[in-house]
Amino acid sequence: MRIALGELTPDPRTFLGHAAYVQLAIFETVAHAVATAPHPRAKAALSPVATLSLAKYDGLVNELRRAGHDPVDAMAGFTADTDAFRHDVAGADWYESLVTSYVIAGLLDDFFLRLADGLPDGLAERVRALLEAGSGGDVVVAQLLGGIQSDPRLGSRLALWGRRLVGDTLLVARSALEVPADTRPDEARLEPVFTELIAAHTRRMDAIGLTA
Amino acid sequence: MRIALGELTPDPRTFLGHAAYVQLAIFETVAHAVATAPHPRAKAALSPVATLSLAKYDGLVNELRRAGHDPVDAMAGFTADTDAFRHDVAGADWYESLVTSYVIAGLLDDFFLRLADGLPDGLAERVRALLEAGSGGDVVVAQLLGGIQSDPRLGSRLALWGRRLVGDTLLVARSALEVPADTRPDEARLEPVFTELIAAHTRRMDAIGLTA
Repeated sequence: MRIALGELTPDPRTFLGHAAYVQLAIFETVAHAVATAPHPRAKAALSPVATLSLAKYDGLVNELRRAGHDPVDAMAGFTADTDAFRHDVAGADWYESLVTSYVIAGLLDDFFLRLADGLPDGLAERVRALLEAGSGGDVVVAQLLGGIQSDPRLGSRLALWGRRLVGDTLLVARSALEVPADTRPDEARLEPVFTELIAAHTRRMDAIGLTA
Repeated sequence: MRIALGELTPDPRTFLGHAAYVQLAIFETVAHAVATAPHPRAKAALSPVATLSLAKYDGLVNELRRAGHDPVDAMAGFTADTDAFRHDVAGADWYESLVTSYVIAGLLDDFFLRLADGLPDGLAERVRALLEAGSGGDVVVAQLLGGIQSDPRLGSRLALWGRRLVGDTLLVARSALEVPADTRPDEARLEPVFTELIAAHTRRMDAIGLTA
């Protein structure tokens, strides 16, 4: 029996706290790429990507406040794992940090967007509107294509890096699923949940000419 | 004879390019403070400060586009000096980077706000509205007060750091003034231009209990 992602959505406070803190980590990754951009044109091109991510974070935090929750308390359970994740995927140079921004924003925005299906009516639509607003992938793609086209070896290195990221990023997604202990499905039954996510990831890697 | 700041405003493209790139440097400083915050509550409190700064940058870049200028070309003349400035004022730890965010955002937003007086009508009002939108100083003050109150020696160190920043920051401001070579005033006549800026800076340092 196929399990839909919306059947594994935790309560709204847990969902919003996790999604918000993950979005803050995405923002920090993008902001680091802005700060370390090798030239002003790249810096200027990337800064709107940081804006998009901060706007999502702000929107998720506002939903927590609207529901009467303290946003920091709601995020507290996810800070240690998310900080460790961000550290692990920081990358060794600017191009790797760009791939990180692109891969984790793509996968995790997509994941929380689908997971939002299981939120109560009203909240589900508002969260989907927030997360559908785009994550500036086209801007990151343009920067990556420029680098990869002028140095094919960079492409091979970034493809490897992209593959490493997927495992860590899917673990973040897995940790956001509410899987009740008494009805715990075996992991094989959870796998199809991630199939569409991985397919979308493969299309994103294709867009920069890299094999996922 | 007293010189008003609005008499030393460069042409709009120069003003907007310089103000925008300086704002991007302020954003990067704040984003670094977000990323290195010692606990999630501080991180969450500071992230809206980054939003404010990015919004100003976006607004200035939009004014460049509106006037038909390429934003990156307009910023190009200011990237080297501004990057060097940001590097020099990065600070040795989180508290120093907070003081940097507070001092340089305070002084430079105030400076470009006053300098906007010399822009053409319409543009002047729009730029003032952008820069008056606040720079989140209250949030930074709350974080700094918390640290300083629990460790008086931190206060002494940060007061020293704040004093060092002022000189570097005023040099950035000085470099944004259009002082025609044929009517170059002596530096003593420029000094009053900075008097109000420094008075406002002193009030900001008072707010965190530090001597400017």
